[in-house]
This record gives sequence, C-alpha cells and structure tokens, in this order.
Amino acid sequence: MALIPTFATPPGFLGIERRDPGAAFTIAGIPLDIGTTNRAGARDGPSAIRRASRMLVDGAHPHHWVEPAATMDIADAGDFAIVLGDLAASLAAIEAQAAPLKHLVALGGEHGVTLPLLRALRKRVGEPLGLVQFDSHLDTWPENFGQRLAHGSVFYHALDEGLVDPRRMVQVGIRSPMGRDVRDWTLARGVTIIAAQEALETGPAAVAERVRAVLGGGPAYLSFDIDALDPAFAPGTGTPEVGGFATWQVQAILRRLGGVRFAGMDVVEVAPAHDVAEITSLAAATVAWEYLALLGAEGG
Amino acid sequence: MALIPTFATPPGFLGIERRDPGAAFTIAGIPLDIGTTNRAGARDGPSAIRRASRMLVDGAHPHHWVEPAATMDIADAGDFAIVLGDLAASLAAIEAQAAPLKHLVALGGEHGVTLPLLRALRKRVGEPLGLVQFDSHLDTWPENFGQRLAHGSVFYHALDEGLVDPRRMVQVGIRSPMGRDVRDWTLARGVTIIAAQEALETGPAAVAERVRAVLGGGPAYLSFDIDALDPAFAPGTGTPEVGGFATWQVQAILRRLGGVRFAGMDVVEVAPAHDVAEITSLAAATVAWEYLALLGAEGG
Amino acid sequence: MALIPTFATPPGFLGIERRDPGAAFTIAGIPLDIGTTNRAGARDGPSAIRRASRMLVDGAHPHHWVEPAATMDIADAGDFAIVLGDLAASLAAIEAQAAPLKHLVALGGEHGVTLPLLRALRKRVGEPLGLVQFDSHLDTWPENFGQRLAHGSVFYHALDEGLVDPRRMVQVGIRSPMGRDVRDWTLARGVTIIAAQEALETGPAAVAERVRAVLGGGPAYLSFDIDALDPAFAPGTGTPEVGGFATWQVQAILRRLGGVRFAGMDVVEVAPAHDVAEITSLAAATVAWEYLALLGAEGG
Amino acid sequence: MALIPTFATPPGFLGIERRDPGAAFTIAGIPLDIGTTNRAGARDGPSAIRRASRMLVDGAHPHHWVEPAATMDIADAGDFAIVLGDLAASLAAIEAQAAPLKHLVALGGEHGVTLPLLRALRKRVGEPLGLVQFDSHLDTWPENFGQRLAHGSVFYHALDEGLVDPRRMVQVGIRSPMGRDVRDWTLARGVTIIAAQEALETGPAAVAERVRAVLGGGPAYLSFDIDALDPAFAPGTGTPEVGGFATWQVQAILRRLGGVRFAGMDVVEVAPAHDVAEITSLAAATVAWEYLALLGAEGG
Amino acid sequence: MALIPTFATPPGFLGIERRDPGAAFTIAGIPLDIGTTNRAGARDGPSAIRRASRMLVDGAHPHHWVEPAATMDIADAGDFAIVLGDLAASLAAIEAQAAPLKHLVALGGEHGVTLPLLRALRKRVGEPLGLVQFDSHLDTWPENFGQRLAHGSVFYHALDEGLVDPRRMVQVGIRSPMGRDVRDWTLARGVTIIAAQEALETGPAAVAERVRAVLGGGPAYLSFDIDALDPAFAPGTGTPEVGGFATWQVQAILRRLGGVRFAGMDVVEVAPAHDVAEITSLAAATVAWEYLALLGAEGG
Amino acid sequence: MALIPTFATPPGFLGIERRDPGAAFTIAGIPLDIGTTNRAGARDGPSAIRRASRMLVDGAHPHHWVEPAATMDIADAGDFAIVLGDLAASLAAIEAQAAPLKHLVALGGEHGVTLPLLRALRKRVGEPLGLVQFDSHLDTWPENFGQRLAHGSVFYHALDEGLVDPRRMVQVGIRSPMGRDVRDWTLARGVTIIAAQEALETGPAAVAERVRAVLGGGPAYLSFDIDALDPAFAPGTGTPEVGGFATWQVQAILRRLGGVRFAGMDVVEVAPAHDVAEITSLAAATVAWEYLALLGAEGG
Repeated sequence: MALIPTFATPPGFLGIERRDPGAAFTIAGIPLDIGTTNRAGARDGPSAIRRASRMLVDGAHPHHWVEPAATMDIADAGDFAIVLGDLAASLAAIEAQAAPLKHLVALGGEHGVTLPLLRALRKRVGEPLGLVQFDSHLDTWPENFGQRLAHGSVFYHALDEGLVDPRRMVQVGIRSPMGRDVRDWTLARGVTIIAAQEALETGPAAVAERVRAVLGGGPAYLSFDIDALDPAFAPGTGTPEVGGFATWQVQAILRRLGGVRFAGMDVVEVAPAHDVAEITSLAAATVAWEYLALLGAEGG
Repeated sequence: MALIPTFATPPGFLGIERRDPGAAFTIAGIPLDIGTTNRAGARDGPSAIRRASRMLVDGAHPHHWVEPAATMDIADAGDFAIVLGDLAASLAAIEAQAAPLKHLVALGGEHGVTLPLLRALRKRVGEPLGLVQFDSHLDTWPENFGQRLAHGSVFYHALDEGLVDPRRMVQVGIRSPMGRDVRDWTLARGVTIIAAQEALETGPAAVAERVRAVLGGGPAYLSFDIDALDPAFAPGTGTPEVGGFATWQVQAILRRLGGVRFAGMDVVEVAPAHDVAEITSLAAATVAWEYLALLGAEGG
Repeated sequence: MALIPTFATPPGFLGIERRDPGAAFTIAGIPLDIGTTNRAGARDGPSAIRRASRMLVDGAHPHHWVEPAATMDIADAGDFAIVLGDLAASLAAIEAQAAPLKHLVALGGEHGVTLPLLRALRKRVGEPLGLVQFDSHLDTWPENFGQRLAHGSVFYHALDEGLVDPRRMVQVGIRSPMGRDVRDWTLARGVTIIAAQEALETGPAAVAERVRAVLGGGPAYLSFDIDALDPAFAPGTGTPEVGGFATWQVQAILRRLGGVRFAGMDVVEVAPAHDVAEITSLAAATVAWEYLALLGAEGG
Repeated sequence: MALIPTFATPPGFLGIERRDPGAAFTIAGIPLDIGTTNRAGARDGPSAIRRASRMLVDGAHPHHWVEPAATMDIADAGDFAIVLGDLAASLAAIEAQAAPLKHLVALGGEHGVTLPLLRALRKRVGEPLGLVQFDSHLDTWPENFGQRLAHGSVFYHALDEGLVDPRRMVQVGIRSPMGRDVRDWTLARGVTIIAAQEALETGPAAVAERVRAVLGGGPAYLSFDIDALDPAFAPGTGTPEVGGFATWQVQAILRRLGGVRFAGMDVVEVAPAHDVAEITSLAAATVAWEYLALLGAEGG
Repeated sequence: MALIPTFATPPGFLGIERRDPGAAFTIAGIPLDIGTTNRAGARDGPSAIRRASRMLVDGAHPHHWVEPAATMDIADAGDFAIVLGDLAASLAAIEAQAAPLKHLVALGGEHGVTLPLLRALRKRVGEPLGLVQFDSHLDTWPENFGQRLAHGSVFYHALDEGLVDPRRMVQVGIRSPMGRDVRDWTLARGVTIIAAQEALETGPAAVAERVRAVLGGGPAYLSFDIDALDPAFAPGTGTPEVGGFATWQVQAILRRLGGVRFAGMDVVEVAPAHDVAEITSLAAATVAWEYLALLGAEGG
Repeated sequence: MALIPTFATPPGFLGIERRDPGAAFTIAGIPLDIGTTNRAGARDGPSAIRRASRMLVDGAHPHHWVEPAATMDIADAGDFAIVLGDLAASLAAIEAQAAPLKHLVALGGEHGVTLPLLRALRKRVGEPLGLVQFDSHLDTWPENFGQRLAHGSVFYHALDEGLVDPRRMVQVGIRSPMGRDVRDWTLARGVTIIAAQEALETGPAAVAERVRAVLGGGPAYLSFDIDALDPAFAPGTGTPEVGGFATWQVQAILRRLGGVRFAGMDVVEVAPAHDVAEITSLAAATVAWEYLALLGAEGG
C-alpha cells in the first residue's frame, strides 16, 4: 500500500494543511531576527520547526493521551509579514496580525516578538497576564546596545506597560551574566526568578510547583526561549549560555502545569543555521506540542 | 510596509500554493531512496529543493525573460506516496500517480523513479521518447547488487521496454568507472554518450548542438541526475563522481535547447544530509526553473 | 619508537583484525536502512561505529576491569549482505547469515534487523528469549505506512511469533507519540514498559533493578536503539525524540546487569550523516563495549 | 626556535596589529545584516574574513610581488558601530565613521553598507565615482519587500543620488532572476551589465578589458559581493545564485586592473554560518588582498 | 545610538584589549597539539575560545556577582610561541614563556601544555602544588605510543618531578578505558580519583566537598580538560569519552571552591574543527570565566 | 540475491583485502600531521581516502579501460607507524618502512612525508628522480617557523640532497603568497614552475605536454598535494589557497602522462575534519586510482 511516510509529511506544523486563521488554535511563524545581539538566523526558525514537527504527527502524547494533529482544532496560518530592517515597524505589524487570532501558538523568530504578542493578548483578555518565561536571560534590560526594542528588553516593556502582572510572573532557567541592577529592578517589581542552578538541583517537580503557585488562576502566557535549554540540547540558537536544562526536565515541568489558564504561547530563538541534525528545531516543536497536548487534555 | 521576505516564502516549489494536479505543469516530489547503492537520503530531496527554490520566486529568468512562478500555469501537488521497503511496489505506485498528470516536473528521490515516469509518459505520448540524460553514470547496468530495479538500471529497462528511442537518446557528463560491456551494450543500441571530459573540453555550445541533433523533433524527456555536476557544485548526492560540470555549463546547455518538444522532466539524487548551505538543492531547483522558463518562453 | 597511535587504529571493531566467524563473539555490521520511516542513512552505521571504537581499544573497562580487545575471543566478520530495495528478502538473508554464529554482537542498520536476529537466536536457544529493549519507541506497531516489516514493527512480530517471552520483556526509555491501542496491546501481552520520564526521575539503579527482575534467569537479548539516548547525546539517528537518557545513565544501568544470561545483542539506528564529531557512533560503540566487558567479567 | 605558526596568527586582518585609523589604508569590518532578504549572518563576516586571512600574511603576491602585510601602510581599525534593529540609523552611523578615513577597505556585512561608504567617498573625492561591481544581482531595485535601504537597492540610490557616474559603472557576473523593468532602468542610465554567462564564455581577459574601458581614468570604487562567485566557491553567503565565477577567474580579472584610480573597496555578504572550511571567508580575504597588492604594486 | 553589539566584540578573551603581560591575571593561548593521540586540532582552541567568550563580556557572574572583564586586572597576551613538529622543544619554550607571568589562565592546546606550566609554577610558589584535574583520563601513563611527553603522561611527570603533592591532588570525572596498573600506580602515590559514574550519582555538592578537602589550604592549580564534559556538551575535543558531566554540574562544583588558594589554571583540549555551534568553545570560555569570577569574588 | 552494496565495501583502499606488502603495488597510509603550519588533521586522511574509494571499486576506468581493484596486483598494507610529537624521528621511521616496498602509493598525511619516501626511492632506483608536483605551494622554503622538516620544506631538501633532478622537476598549480627569494632559488636550480593562473588559462593539454617534456624518459615520481585543487573542490585540507584547479582538469592532465616511467606516488594533505560530504577524500582517492589505471594500462 503506497503511503506518505514521516519523511514526506506536508510542510505545515504537525503536517497540518488547514491554513485559515479561524481555528481554536492558530500556529504562526514570526520570522524576525533583526534585534538579535549575537548570532543571527532566527528568521529561519519557523520553517525548521515545522519541518522537525513531522516526528510528532502520528500518535498520542504519552502522558496526556491527546493527539493534537488529529483531534484538536488547529490551523497553521503561515508566517507573519514583517518590515525588513525596521524593528519598531515590525513589532507594530506583528501586533496587528496577532490581534484577531483566538489562541496563538507562535514560532519565532527572536524573543523580541513576544512584546507585540503580549500587547495584543493584553487587549484581548482585558487584564494583565500571568507569565512563565523559560530563558537563560532575564530580558529585562531597559535597552540593548542602544536599541530599546531588541530581544533583551522584552519583559522590561511588558512590565513597564502593565501587560504582565509581575506578581504572577516567573522566570525559569536564568543563568547568563547580568547587571545586578537589572536583576534587582526585576525582583523589586515582584517577579519570581528561578536560577538555572537552583532549578537543576531541586528538580522538575519542585520547579513546577513554584511555577503553578506564581501563575495562580488568572489568564497566563508561556514564553519559551529555546536557550533555556543547555546548548547541548539546543545548539541552534543565537545567544547560548551553558549550564541549562535537559529537554526532559522542561517536559517534566510543562506536564505538571495542568489547570493553568493559558491564553497563548511562543517558542523563540531557534536559529537553524547553528543547529545540528534538527535537534533544536525538534526540541522547539516538542515544546509547542507539549503545550497543545496539555490544553487538549483539558478540552482546549 | 510589512511583507513576506524571501526567507519566509511559503513552502511550495517557487512558493506556489496551488496544489491541485490539474495545472499545465505539475511539480511533484518522489521521496524514494531505497534502491540507492551508496549514500542514502534522497528521500529528503523534494522538501529541500522546494525550500531552496525561494531564491527563484521573484523576477524573470535572465535569458528567457519568463517569470515561471508568476505567469505560468503550475501547481505543486506535494509528494507521491510510496511503499516503504519495497522497490518494485513503489515503482508501480509512482507510475499510477504520474499517469493522470499533464506535464510532470518531478523532484527526486533516486534515479530509479525515472523508470515509472517514462512508462507513464510513453503511454501518454504514444511513441518512444527522445531522452537527454545528464548524469555521471550510464545507468544501463542490467542489475545493481542483485536488484534489477535500482537506480543504476533505469535506462537499461527504459531501452529494453521501448520507452525511449535509443537513436534519440543522449547521455551527457558520463565519467564513473563502468563495465566496458555495459557501455558497449548501450552504444550498440544507438545511444549517444558524451563523456564528461569531452563535454568539458569542447564547451557548452558544442554539447548543446549535439544534444539538439540527437533529440530531433519528436517528444522528449529531460532526466537530470544532480551528480552530473561536479561534487564541488553538488556535494549533496549519493553516488558522487569527481570531474563533472560546473553549474553554469549545464545552464548554458539547457538554454540552448529551445524548440525541443519536451514532455516531462525530473531532477533526481539530491541527498540533503550531505549538502552544504543548500547549494545542491539550489542547483536542482535552478535546473527545474531553467526547464520551466525554457518552455514558458515558447508559450509552454 | 614508531608506533600506531589511536588515530591509525585498524578498521575492525576495537581494531580487531580477526575476521573468521568462529570466535566466541562475532561482531557483524548489518547495513540495512530501507525500512526507516524518517531520516535515512543507518546503512553507514557499521563503518562509523567501527571507526569510533578506536577510543576503546587500549585499556581495561573502568568498572569490570576487562580489556575486550586484548583478552576476549572476538572476531569482526564484516558486514552482512542484504538485498537492495527489498526489505522482506533482506530480512531472510540476515537470518541465514546470523544462524551459524555463536554469539552475535550486531551493529545496525535500522531496528528492523532485530527481527531476523531474534528468529535465528530463538532457534539456537530453543526457547523464547528474555528481552531488554532500550528505545524511545515501542516498535510494536502492526505495520508502518503499509509495510509490515519496517523498523516500527519489530517487536510486534517478535511477540507474535513467540520469539520473545513477553513476561520477560522490558522496554526502557519509551517516549514517542504512540497509539494508545498499540501501547495497550503491548501491555496486555505482559510486556513491561518503563517510560523515559519515569526512568529519568527514578534513576539508573532503580531501573536496573526492574530490568533484572523482568529478565530473570533465562536466556536474554539486549536490543539497544540509539534513539533511547536524548538527541543531544545521539543526534545521528533517524527518528529522534527529545527527552531521553544521558549516556552515563544507560552505562549505569548496563553495568548493573551482571548475571543476566545474555545470548546476543544489537545496537541499531546510528545514522552517521546526521552525527556530529562521531558522538553518536562513539556512544553506540561504547554500548557494545559495555556489553562485551559485562560478559567478559563473567568469563564470557 | 619557538615561533608563532600560521594557525596562531594575531586576529587582525593579515595579522595586522596596528589599530589607529590614520594609515594610508584602513581595514574596517561593518557587521550589518538586518537588511538581508534571505539567509542571515553577514554580521559575522568581518571576524571570519580576518581569521581566514592568516593564509595570506607571509610572502609576496605571486603576480604583483608585493607583500601587503609587511610593506604597506595598513591599519585594522576593528568593526564599525551600528544601530541594532534600525537600518536607516545604521547607514547614517556607517557614513560618519567612514568619512575621516583615507582609503577604506571594508569587510561586510551586507551589501547595504556600500551606500553610506559611497556617500562618504563621493564627498571626499568631490565627483561621481566610477564603479566596478562584482555581483550576481543588479541591486538596483527601488525597494526590497517594502524597505528602500536594504541590500538590493544599494545602487538604485547610488545612481539616484549621483554618487556614481553611470557611464563609468559596470556590473559583472549578473545572473539572478530579475525584473526586466529594473534591468531596463539600469541600462537606460548608461550602466554596463556583463552577465555571468557572457563573462564565463568570453573569459577573464575580455571581461577585464571591458571593465577597464568603462572605468576610465577617474576615481573608482570596487564593490565585491561574494555571491558573484558560484556557491561552490562561496557557499557562505545569504542570497546565493548558481552559475557564477570560479575564484581564479575573478583573480584573473582583478590582476588586469592596474592603472585604475581606485579610491576604496568593499567585500560583502560573507555569512560564515553557511560556510564550509572557511572557503568563503578565504575567498573574501583573498579579494581584499588582491586589491591591496594591486595598489601596492603601483606604490599605493 | 551606534554601538558594538556582542557579535562584534573585539577578539581578545572577554573582549579584553590590554595585551601586556604585567596584569594580575594573564590570559594566554598555547596552540600546541602535536602530542595528541586521536583527533587533531587543539591548536585552534585559543582563538575559538576567545571568540566564544563574547557571550560573557557584559554583566556580572550570577553567583559571585563579579564582572571579570570590567573590574579585574586582566590582560590577554596572545598565543605562546611553540616549536613546530617538536614536542620536547615546545614544552621547554612554553615553560620559559610562562615563567614571568604573575597568574596565568592558559587556553589550550592539548593537555601536554600543563606539564611546563606546572614546572614554571612550582618554581614560582616554591612548593609542590595542590591540583584539581577535571578529565575523563588519568593522564598518568608513563608514555603514549612511544612518546613520553604526550598528553596522556602529563601527570605522571608532574608527580614524578614533585611538581604536585599527590595527597593534595584529585582527579574528577575519570572514565576512559585504562590500564589497571596505571590506576594502581596513581592511587599508590596518594592521588584521589573520583570516577565519572561516582561523581554523577553523588552530585556536585558532594564532589565539591571532597575536592576542597583534598586541596586543603596550600597553593593549588586547576587543570580542566574539556573532555571531562560529556561529548554532548563538548563534542569539539580530540579524545572524547561518553558518560561525562553536564556543564551545569562542573559549574556547581567550581562555584563551591571558594577559599582554595588557586595560583593558576588551564582549560585544554578544545578542538574547534569538531565542534558544533561553538558549544565546546563556549563551555571552555565559561570555565575560565568561572575561575576568574571565583577569584575576583575573593578580591583576586 | 543478497550482496554487499557499495556502501558496505570492506575498508581497504578500493575494497582491497590483501594486506601483505609483497604486491606489485602497495597502498599505505602515512598518518603524520605534526609539521603542518595551519589547520591540523591530515592524520585522518588515510582512513577517509580509503572509505571514499568505495565509489571506484566496481567498473573500469572510463579512459584507460583498466579495473585496478580487479585486475592489478595491489595490496593495502595499512598505515605506517610514526613517532608521536617528533617530526625528525617520524621521517626516519617512514623511510625505513617504505624502503622494502616495490611500488608505493602513499596516502597522506602531510606533505612532509614525501621527503622520506623520496629518500627511500632514490636509493632503490639509483639515480635522481624526475618529479611532477601538483601543489599550490612551492614547498622549497628552507624552514617553516623554525622547523626545517615541516611540510613547506620538502622539496628544498629533496633538491638539496640530490633526490630529485631539478631539470626533470615541474611544479603545477603554484599560487600561494611566496618569498620571491624562495621562488628565485627554485628557478635557479632549474625547476619548472607552472603557476595556477597560467595552467588554468592555457588548459590541461598544454600543461600535460609541458609536464611530459620536463619529466622525460627517466624514473619519475608523482606528488599530489590535494591543495592543488581549488578549495571548492578540496575544502578538506590544511593550507588552502583559492584560485586552483577543478578536478576534471587534473584528471585531464594525468590521463595524458602515459609513457612516463613512474616509480611511486603520493597524495597528501587531506584533512577530513574540514571536508564536506567526502568530496576531498573522493578527489584524493580518484587521483590515486587515475595513477593506478594509467600504469595498469601500460601493463604496470
């Protein structure tokens, strides 16, 4: 019997061929990388993550027993338009494109894309969001080499603009060199920081418990910077920091977040030119699939 | 103005989003590689060639002044189904899927796929085809390590079954080690062989003239094994042979084939796992684009 | 004094130059990959594993204090013949070649090769085998995209044909998406499944204890799919799944399996074209070396 | 005798440790890539070109018999500052930094950097410049996906602003798909276009003669987009086009440009993340070294 | 505001531009690799580690809250001269160049460079040194394929020459195949060996405690062979052994070594040609930065 | 029928399993690279060239119609022993191992190995040899960064010791930066130098004619440094220089050297860690196979 094996899966995320943005969940790529401060190439993240997701098309999630590609109401709307060479205008365009979508699962692109996504979502939900951020960097610098809107300032603005409720915000996996003043500013706002060393020594269950406690019962957002993973697990990224998570650990945390009222998510900073054997793209695809299965298990 | 730059081109060949197979030209991937005798991975050729083709979406061909993606009637039907682990059944399935298409531009996959494509086309046109084969190998061995249907026997069967008119068949770029008996058999059938060294020393214009003379005025087929190019230009292939063409030389030959009554073509043996910086995939995409522009310039 | 350093080790496994298959242990490569469902290239696994094994030639195992290359009765018989493009015929040929060997350590090649190896071994030992399978996939699907014999159905047939005693069979590291019906069928037969998350949270000692308990005292087989390791540790494989073992963890399990009556083993699914710096090949070579040293320490 | 071999050459271009910008020739990197339309990463071009240039430190040029690193007055001023995520502001900053330099040899970075370099140089020399542009693209599009300042519009602006004398401007190696209107506009201004196919068929000597004739006796500029080379010779670039030059051919052209009154040059679009074995970086370093040796041979 | 982003950091370690060797800490590369027994290329380690260190320039260490590049007295003296093709003469040259430096942080190069560094430091401190060696190999073989001075004999000589106090010497991460006689000889001298499996099962805190206990209060040296890390975390090395540390674990150990009287350190065996996405180089740079921050936190 | 396809060819050169050195032709690897001045790794050349040669096992040479693996008297003796870290001692050991062989085809390893091979051959033939050297470098420097015996001095010594007759010595493809004094010294000895640009502009036939004229009728040696090829065709080498040969051109030259009385050959400087898709190794294997077929066609 002639069939299409995994290697010839159609190119949408999880092989999804539905393109209209009216679904309960919309996948969209956001190929922006002009605000990155070290290695370039996150523009190619969306297509690589889609390609890598072919491994996750067939079969149910082995914990939630949901089969996102087969049973959930998901479309892949393709990539957002951006403005070449103009970060400010690109962020405005991204916000406009995100606004009408019901529940966006965004594939970056640099972390800078999260700011307009939070702006659009804040309007939709009508209140500040809870936020769990997996990352090796705080991303609460007030500017990056002179640029206020680049990928290291996303959460400075998100806090400053009231998009996120700092008491319901938790950063997991932090470990880069950082200005102590930046960290103190972040803590002073009420944000919870779980450093990588602490997370790795205490284990996924303890981390998940803290994350759940911080997020509470309000609407929440998941922003997953792939550099939260150790470079061994995610070499294909722009600002790698050694000393991070193994992928199984972030899966173990995510699987324990049932009941959180997630309203959107992104996985960002995949730079395929620096990847090997698609391992970073597959990790990113798996994170988005974990998120979908988590919500699908709750009837999402 | 927010737009989709080249790097975010939709995933069809030349960014083509039309999928139905009713167009004047149909692109289809054929992800078969189980008959390859050396390095594996041609199954991933179609998706890599499509991705690389994004460089060829915008603008007209600089010789034929045709813009295939914008002005020609082309669909990308996706990949053909195959039968995992069964070469004979896969070839039968490929023939069945090719049969209804008006004019197929096939993206391989191994060279073995050409046999069922010729079988289907022979039936459609009602007479033996002319054939120009770019290749480093004769591919007229009667068998390959015990397998009659693998990629080194394609044209043995094509000749044996009368799919191709040997007096209208020309092989260009031949240079691998070969059994002298195999070569003598091929020549005895009336096939024209232009060895790589001869082609490289006489230049593209002379080669094109010979090819045109052999093909004559009947219906013809172009089968382009990417290993016709030197491994420097096409490292991403399974059975590389040094001493081949530079890409500009095959372009110079193809551009001189106006007037030939082409009825179909394939570009095969792209194995992306062995490629670097997409150069092999881009060369293959360019060959298909040259073919389309050549025919488009003649109102094809 | 002029000598041959590690980098110039002769090309047999562990530098072994003895080729005849009459030894107590026979290493053989099985370069089959035509039943793989995602990335190709496991055909090149045997040569890459042999090359990588040069790091393990000199010196004793640091736990078992056995020096396999120097003191055990081992030959490297080279690679098995296969039938190009024909999975069914290849499996038959593999079984025939395995049958006369005393104790085979097979270097894959895809996981599909395990089925004929179990068939041959079942005949030799005269009873169903115990089995410990390291893998991210159950491999008990009844078919794979229409092909009954491909690499995802190995243990469906092994159970169905009575080659393995399901009550003495344990799968370690399972984590891929899977049909719940396939899992339920497997469990219903009596097979023990240790999911990756469970194995990673409980640790190697607890896993080893369970494995030993399941295997019991009868003859047993070790089938090690390299994708049991996380892609960070084994990128060079065809169907990677994130969230797997670190290599030290599988070593910690294997070293605790003393006393099990192993009658054969394989390490499969190494696809060198996707590897980096030989790390996957070295991991696979190390698994085979751990197995040899384990048995050598018991006078094997 | 303990010495520093080639592999430990200090990190300046040609190992040059002088950093002040007061030299007769100043090397500077311009790590801009936010206006690139396809693959990213030209920001890393300067450091990679410098590293690759270690092969050119010792010994004289084999045609001009000049030893640039040893006998010419050259400094390496490091990299220019840019404005992250803001193309327009970056171009302004580049112009300001280029203005005070006597004779700049710029290492890109994307081709967009040439516009501010020409603006600065036009002011310095007081008249429109002659220009020889090696490139696979015209780069005279009025805009790029909505962005007027990106790398495909450099020479549209250079012509539009009167920075370059179109009758003294020649483009060599052109071969990408292109709008026929864009080409016609360029030709209508008086620019000479030498297509890649034409250049490859007529040979370096004929091309050099035409270039010399177009440039004439006034001040001239060399802008070398590394994608003028075929991707086989320069895979590490963002917008590759097959069918280009071999490196020896551009060397053969450049060596015949003695007597041209060059006032500055750049080599751009090296994207090291896509390179292999430094071959693109070495080609770019060699182009800059050819330029220096050409001028050094004339007492420059 | 135009600035130099991370990607254009000047090429010294941590972007340090001070070159004179009179600083409190001197970084130096030692590009020696002619005594390596397996894969070559450690000669390129110093330049790759420097380049990768750009990620660690800005911001304070997240545990010690020291910012080495900004606040410590550090110079980067470039690379040491060596004698091509002559290991004995190279070691003598290295010792001579190390002798006048106050506190050397050496970037290898193969592990063989540690011997002359210890010889120079032994003279400077006037007593045998304590030593903590992270490594997968004992490196106490009396010779390596006939060569007494190659990278596997470093600590044989260090012990034999009285450079190191064996009771204050601890080897962490040992796991390669090894001669039992070599291990017994090492233990008999009083050296402490912490095998990789033991270290991984007991965790970083326990290991750090043992290391501190062994090192005691006298002057000590840190020699970090990057192959102490698992190949997943450090593929770019010459003699990889699977089953090693994750990077976070060695960071967790190093951060607990406050109070040890370190007098020098090296990080060796980085072979960039085998690296992927700079992860090995970044791990090595991070180890040196951890060391500097540890000492900086104590006013070093 | 189960058979061994190309991908499972046994590991000897051309799959040759005969190992004794008594054959008419002996293949031997010489894994030396400690005298290389830029990138390392030629030690891995022999094993990579052997592996790549599997493409050349089956079938006759398409010009000479000889099938070396099947019909010539060839053994593959494995790799020579060397002395780790000691260039002088290694050269002595190489000479001793080469001395008893009838006709050696050596696979390098760095170019330094040619000196002891010429010393041994000079003794065997009893007169100075003719020499054709394909190379981008003269290799007649009197020393290399203080080392007299490294790879850039091979032919200085060969001339100085009277191993080669300078009037019968021709260097083809020269193009690196070079000391004019070194070149003048070489020319003054009577050596013929054919620069790369000259060779490329005049074509293979003219070059071959000059080579034949220089070599004359006496015993001759072929030394082929793979960097004679352009880095596009041979990226996997240590001291690349752009502007070199395409592989077909060197084949066209070699095929015209019938009648030369060759007494030995080497192909050197293949560094697989820098290769892509085996193209350099395959080019090197092809050069050795061209040599064998040339001699085989003359009954050699």
